[in-house]
Amino acid sequence: MSTTTLSLDEIHSLICDCLVANGCDDENAAAVARTIGGAERDGAAAHGLFRLPGYVASLRSGKVNGCARPTCDPLTLAALRMNGDDGFAPLAIETGIPMLAEAAHVTGLAVLLIRNSFHFAALWPEVEALAEQNLVGLACTVHTPMVAPFGARSAFFSTNPLAFAYPRPGQHPYVFDMATAAMSQGDIRVAARDGVPVAADVGVDANGNATTDAAAIDDGGVILPFGGFKGSAIATMIELLAAGVVGDAFSYEAGERDNRDGGPAKGGELIMALSPRLLADSDWSEHSEGFLSRLEAMDGVRLPSTRRFSRRSAPDGREVNSALLAEIRQLTT
Amino acid sequence: MSTTTLSLDEIHSLICDCLVANGCDDENAAAVARTIGGAERDGAAAHGLFRLPGYVASLRSGKVNGCARPTCDPLTLAALRMNGDDGFAPLAIETGIPMLAEAAHVTGLAVLLIRNSFHFAALWPEVEALAEQNLVGLACTVHTPMVAPFGARSAFFSTNPLAFAYPRPGQHPYVFDMATAAMSQGDIRVAARDGVPVAADVGVDANGNATTDAAAIDDGGVILPFGGFKGSAIATMIELLAAGVVGDAFSYEAGERDNRDGGPAKGGELIMALSPRLLADSDWSEHSEGFLSRLEAMDGVRLPSTRRFSRRSAPDGREVNSALLAEIRQLTT
Repeated sequence: MSTTTLSLDEIHSLICDCLVANGCDDENAAAVARTIGGAERDGAAAHGLFRLPGYVASLRSGKVNGCARPTCDPLTLAALRMNGDDGFAPLAIETGIPMLAEAAHVTGLAVLLIRNSFHFAALWPEVEALAEQNLVGLACTVHTPMVAPFGARSAFFSTNPLAFAYPRPGQHPYVFDMATAAMSQGDIRVAARDGVPVAADVGVDANGNATTDAAAIDDGGVILPFGGFKGSAIATMIELLAAGVVGDAFSYEAGERDNRDGGPAKGGELIMALSPRLLADSDWSEHSEGFLSRLEAMDGVRLPSTRRFSRRSAPDGREVNSALLAEIRQLTT
Repeated sequence: MSTTTLSLDEIHSLICDCLVANGCDDENAAAVARTIGGAERDGAAAHGLFRLPGYVASLRSGKVNGCARPTCDPLTLAALRMNGDDGFAPLAIETGIPMLAEAAHVTGLAVLLIRNSFHFAALWPEVEALAEQNLVGLACTVHTPMVAPFGARSAFFSTNPLAFAYPRPGQHPYVFDMATAAMSQGDIRVAARDGVPVAADVGVDANGNATTDAAAIDDGGVILPFGGFKGSAIATMIELLAAGVVGDAFSYEAGERDNRDGGPAKGGELIMALSPRLLADSDWSEHSEGFLSRLEAMDGVRLPSTRRFSRRSAPDGREVNSALLAEIRQLTT
């Protein structure tokens, strides 16, 4: 694969220019660029520039409002409802997180309910932003169906990701951001392309039979939840939180409504913040460090996100797929 | 197995009499009896009378205060801290749930943080009690180490259960109550006794090697989390919520402090309530039913807890293991 090295500033400008050329205003473009650029900075290519053509497709199809002005209404002291104004999620999230944090610092826990927004990114930016303020963050969202509930053989859930961050003052937080699918569609396609077998519980073929052949899953089959019926129950919980409690589309509704332009689907997101300083004791951080430091010192244990954090601290300059770069430049003119 | 049929009232009295004979006051005995009796009513024997000798052991060893008076202090409008007064959890839960529900009906979401309590039961009673009030319930707790983190070969987590209930007005809620361990210690012992192999990802033997031999897991081996590294991350989240945010013992701390009398370990529990009526729209229930009714109509899908609910509605009278009944009567005199 031919790559080109760009500075993080160059990556940011590349994204902004491309989005503005396709109808975004500066504020929305910059918020998306911080999200995509953050993924490139962290070496998470699947959430990086790779996603930009999808964002552009949704602007060009008229599905997404590139000049959205998200608005936030407090429902109670502890609950905020954000209307995303049919825009991409990053500006709604960047607008809402400081308000959510402010509420959680007063009430001990608070929730941000985002509606009418198009989420096409990882969830770690929102939970990490809360952890930076010494808050526990929890976030979940849904998109369109591609995962079968446990026992079923047709798609009904999306990959239903769940992200969680726990603050560790002075160091990176404990963070996970996981699909409740056994494997992402992207990873299955890579395995299919490379002829690499997948585990037996990742998916079924078009006839509903278990298979380790990634190509057979990708070609008319369906992905399964991670962890069997327990993972399926957690995926159900995420639908009920991100759609039921938020009051936006369940995956099946998002799938019915989406125009399939290759970009994100309209939906909701639930983000929760808890303040251990208010809820536990003044020594909450030392107490939790006792646990986390023992956990990470165990033979064979690696905390989630550590690879991403180590890539984050690499010197400026990131390798970008040259063909993708050419495609983005083409989309910008 | 020889069994004896008892009415639900007889089961309740049996439990109360046994606990009072061992030092409980009436209020604590009745609360535990409602919890244990509810499990027998639901056909969940592992959480039923089977647990009573453990409760008694902890009274006899002096570890648990049978006359506990749990007290609850509001930390904020949305957060309540309960001090269990070193008693069994049921009275603390029964005292706290109405206060938690009242807060959630005002603030949209609220949290109950229970400390200094001994939990030895399923978690569905607390989340179902919230769902009965049209609230979403979420609960988690920890006890002593018996599960290895993903990649490790020694116990550090407890089975770290997570329970969730979503209200369905006019019918039983959507409820799950799952250990984040691949299999419970009790089920592994049953498989070992019966010589039935377990799945390859349930546990490892004393040498840290994967095995399907339940006896080898039970004899010096260790249980693994469900769902590999994702289940392990969720188990970590539960430690950080039920111990970190609550400000009570992590599993490793509970294990160091417990007197190993066969009963529960002292620890914390986090219970959260959300009001979909306040957070979503007035049609929240119809909206969620659209999702849940489609899900349960799918070929091959069974919602969690449905078997338990169907047993609950069986006519009065439950079969009780006669040997266990004799043991309980022995413990009562």
